[in-house]
Amino acid sequence: MTRTPNPDRRRDRSRRATLAAALELCVERGYAAATVDAIAARAGVSKATIYRWWPAKSAILLEAVDEAAPIPETFPDTGDLAADLLAWLSGILGVFRDPHLGPAFTGLLAESQLDAHLAQQLRERLIDHRVAQLEERMTKARENGELAADADLEVALDVLHSPIYRRQALHYPLPDDTYLDRLISLVMRAIGPAHTD
Amino acid sequence: MTRTPNPDRRRDRSRRATLAAALELCVERGYAAATVDAIAARAGVSKATIYRWWPAKSAILLEAVDEAAPIPETFPDTGDLAADLLAWLSGILGVFRDPHLGPAFTGLLAESQLDAHLAQQLRERLIDHRVAQLEERMTKARENGELAADADLEVALDVLHSPIYRRQALHYPLPDDTYLDRLISLVMRAIGPAHTD
Repeated sequence: MTRTPNPDRRRDRSRRATLAAALELCVERGYAAATVDAIAARAGVSKATIYRWWPAKSAILLEAVDEAAPIPETFPDTGDLAADLLAWLSGILGVFRDPHLGPAFTGLLAESQLDAHLAQQLRERLIDHRVAQLEERMTKARENGELAADADLEVALDVLHSPIYRRQALHYPLPDDTYLDRLISLVMRAIGPAHTD
Repeated sequence: MTRTPNPDRRRDRSRRATLAAALELCVERGYAAATVDAIAARAGVSKATIYRWWPAKSAILLEAVDEAAPIPETFPDTGDLAADLLAWLSGILGVFRDPHLGPAFTGLLAESQLDAHLAQQLRERLIDHRVAQLEERMTKARENGELAADADLEVALDVLHSPIYRRQALHYPLPDDTYLDRLISLVMRAIGPAHTD
């Protein structure tokens, strides 16, 4: 035990306070109102400090969502592809539905739509490496004969992921597990081994 | 011919100038910078007049996109469902790609993501009545045996529409006609009559 000030620990405390404040403000006041000014005031951190670490509020929120998002880094592999896909898509849906993360995540998606650079960061940080794992898993399944030899995996992956995003973006009801089951069934009928449905 | 001032004609001219100015500003400066102030100045119309007709800039842009969007009100029916779907999806893609309309449309989508009321107006004005026609066409196709008797049309419709939106939202490359063909093939394999692929 030491009472000597520890700059690393102080820095870490300020960083965590900033991430938490940014998420809270999105929940309480909405993404647009979660400005750097408001985040700094809520976190008790100076704006100068925030701008030393992050170039914009979107970078703070991206880091906060990335740290807290309950999507596994590793694609599940129980041997049952349909079950694994359900777990996977439920995880993504969980971020949209999460009361603490959902407002920040949908705000980042809205801002990305008008900001190609932010979209790229969001893809790199949250999406692409995860989708690459799913692609690897499905490529193996195609090699093993679990999927048709001519299964179009690129389109299948888009088709599995996209309805959640479009429904959220246009405020249609978000999918539930029954919907996800139907989506996975449709895709498996299209790319599963021939004549077994 | 008359030189008497015609208030209807003047109103119509102001209305058209406002719609055109709003679209132009989205193209030149981006959706965020196309404020009501900037639109009024560009159109030579007072802000008071604009607010008498539209509650917000999003309403102006929604009307402008609705008037100019090259998506047919009626779903094509050539008897070849896959060909009709390709024409349909190409039309939607055409709005995203249109140099005059694309920036306004994607801006409206981004704002809708954070504004449930605008999302509802956008769905009612641009999307839902068109998707309902497609649904009717596919329901007939299912009754005719062009599609499997147990084809899940609700999910199939989501799957056909959603990849364009997610790709645009996250700045992945937009689909081209080859991609749309692959998407339609995948869906037709899933919902087409059994054992014919």
